[in-house]
Amino acid sequence: MKDFKFYSPSEILFGRGVELKAGEMARKHGATKALVHFGGKSAKESGLLDRVCAGLSECGIKYETLGGVQPNPRVSKVREGVKLCRDSGVDFILAVGGGSVIDSAKGIALGLPYEGDVWDFYCGKAKPESVAPFGAVLTVAAAGSEMSDASVLTNDDGSLKRGFSSEMLHCSFSLLNPELTFTLPAYQTACGCADMIIHNLERYFSPAPNLDVTDEISEAVMRVVVKNARILMSNPRDYDARAEVMWCGTLSHNDVTGSRYNGDWASHQLEHELSGMYDIAHGAGLSAIWGAWARYVLSENPSRFARLGEKVFTIPHFEDPVAGANKTIEKFEEFFRSLRLPTSLAEAGIFPDEKILAEMSEKCTFFGKRKIGAFKKLDGNDILKIYRSALR
Amino acid sequence: MKDFKFYSPSEILFGRGVELKAGEMARKHGATKALVHFGGKSAKESGLLDRVCAGLSECGIKYETLGGVQPNPRVSKVREGVKLCRDSGVDFILAVGGGSVIDSAKGIALGLPYEGDVWDFYCGKAKPESVAPFGAVLTVAAAGSEMSDASVLTNDDGSLKRGFSSEMLHCSFSLLNPELTFTLPAYQTACGCADMIIHNLERYFSPAPNLDVTDEISEAVMRVVVKNARILMSNPRDYDARAEVMWCGTLSHNDVTGSRYNGDWASHQLEHELSGMYDIAHGAGLSAIWGAWARYVLSENPSRFARLGEKVFTIPHFEDPVAGANKTIEKFEEFFRSLRLPTSLAEAGIFPDEKILAEMSEKCTFFGKRKIGAFKKLDGNDILKIYRSALR
Repeated sequence: MKDFKFYSPSEILFGRGVELKAGEMARKHGATKALVHFGGKSAKESGLLDRVCAGLSECGIKYETLGGVQPNPRVSKVREGVKLCRDSGVDFILAVGGGSVIDSAKGIALGLPYEGDVWDFYCGKAKPESVAPFGAVLTVAAAGSEMSDASVLTNDDGSLKRGFSSEMLHCSFSLLNPELTFTLPAYQTACGCADMIIHNLERYFSPAPNLDVTDEISEAVMRVVVKNARILMSNPRDYDARAEVMWCGTLSHNDVTGSRYNGDWASHQLEHELSGMYDIAHGAGLSAIWGAWARYVLSENPSRFARLGEKVFTIPHFEDPVAGANKTIEKFEEFFRSLRLPTSLAEAGIFPDEKILAEMSEKCTFFGKRKIGAFKKLDGNDILKIYRSALR
Repeated sequence: MKDFKFYSPSEILFGRGVELKAGEMARKHGATKALVHFGGKSAKESGLLDRVCAGLSECGIKYETLGGVQPNPRVSKVREGVKLCRDSGVDFILAVGGGSVIDSAKGIALGLPYEGDVWDFYCGKAKPESVAPFGAVLTVAAAGSEMSDASVLTNDDGSLKRGFSSEMLHCSFSLLNPELTFTLPAYQTACGCADMIIHNLERYFSPAPNLDVTDEISEAVMRVVVKNARILMSNPRDYDARAEVMWCGTLSHNDVTGSRYNGDWASHQLEHELSGMYDIAHGAGLSAIWGAWARYVLSENPSRFARLGEKVFTIPHFEDPVAGANKTIEKFEEFFRSLRLPTSLAEAGIFPDEKILAEMSEKCTFFGKRKIGAFKKLDGNDILKIYRSALR
């Protein structure tokens, strides 16, 4: 059993209307002038932005706004945010959006007190001494950034996607109102559910066993996601199902289902190259690659896969753990397909040739500088094989 | 479904030897001079205190020590601690012990910056404006105070036990080494397991339903406690079982198994009068009273009790939920008895007469000023009936 650290200090308010507390919460964390950071037009058109900004004003907090964060958020937008904050005296960043917006806000919070370029943190050239305080109003249940210590950015031409983690990167507060996710398109809801499932699986496939209670909690979270994701495909305005999925998304990445630092993370790293290269949705990239990864590493510990299927999908106990493991992988793929998510690159509409596969594999190892994974360590050759077997 | 707040900012280090990090962690939280606060002689004799103090010295942190915290910790000891801290310039309180020691340390942390008497907070006369920072080295898996926002103290003659909660009452850090619990007597281990089970049950019997994922997590935690408590009865030095129980104790009171503020808490309030009056162990008081409470309130929602038994003890599904509910209550009592814990006041060695029962009931309602419970609201008359039915 591996030792672990648990640190998840973000204050969460969960329920209808909690976005109205943004002003109060920002003031509690010292804001005098906030940057309200968001993505596309939906935050504006739905009236959410107005409600949040009105809440800030009521609490005497001035604000600037900066929209236009795209999925796989770009470092250029972060640089723009840092400049705007400096020019206008902003001392608090408020993300209104999903994981991309929160990750971009974290980037701005990192960059604001730093003299160099914020990308330095993401490519390992610098460590932060401080960050500006920041919080979130969550509108997409998926990435878990609202309670994680991580931020993932993509460079400007979209070819390089890199994450940075620090205990300074926890939101001061996150406001979770499930109603704000009612209008998400089915595809985005599905991608979010895949993302949270994989956040659990990355932690589940730890080389040193987790605590049994940690596994049991993770299995519980996955069961609830599977059940409620299916409900949302036919009834996207089901408050209870939205609430289950939203809280599951947060719990899937705040380390209560396993310490991130003891997890595997190969699937995420394999996917980062895919979405860096093709700009597909993160959740769809994950569902497209996970089965190929799972079959490639299965022999390391087939019983682990078999237990997973028994607990999450109630598959029968097989005499042969390899049979149980294969059944488990099938069940996850069946679940992803039931959400109309791809389980191969072809299904994701991606048809890389051998040259591109080799390029992605190279980049995934930081050009030979690292192996990925922990359940099974994977070098460039392993990675190439997994990409190949994910093709269709 | 009820809205909730989740806030659990304590930094947890979990594993063998983490007590050696006490100095480093205290320094991180600004300590220059610490009060090392502990209970009886076992912390001294085991060498734990020396290791912790050596760690403080290595990090340049001076310290004072104050032992003698007793179970159901007394406010007089807290006052002594506050005076010692003031006289000697202490700016950080480090609890080395279980829930009683941590609760006493929280009391000192509250009292240190406060001009009045610290008991004011516990009887609702004052609210804190600030607290001194504090952390814990945990030696008993039970109360969950290492990650909760609560502290419970008893007045000097032992007749009044009162809790105080505040978001300021979270430990800055808690160090959890399961090995430190190897030498706990079986009875104390058992009491700890009962305490954490009841922390789950108090949250489980919320009048407004919890999220399903929250119930599933709570059921998972209870299953793991039940399994590993039994292992520890025959093998107290089983690291894995100690680790499961220790982390379950923390999770049972950090609100991931349900918001404390949405819970019932009647069992705790019924027990507070018992242990205030008779100074029995908290866990034993809880196991002695819970069944009587459960049978008294069962009719509010028998299906809730039935589901609980199905999930935690795999009891069969009964057509009649009342039958399932009764089976569930029996199963919990059977579990408590398997740990040699009492399931009635007589088994706890307590034989109050009618006059004392009436006195406890009166005190439990703050002399008619409050009802207790939330799953079912209970007045003095209800409370008296529950005490009576708990007699044997």
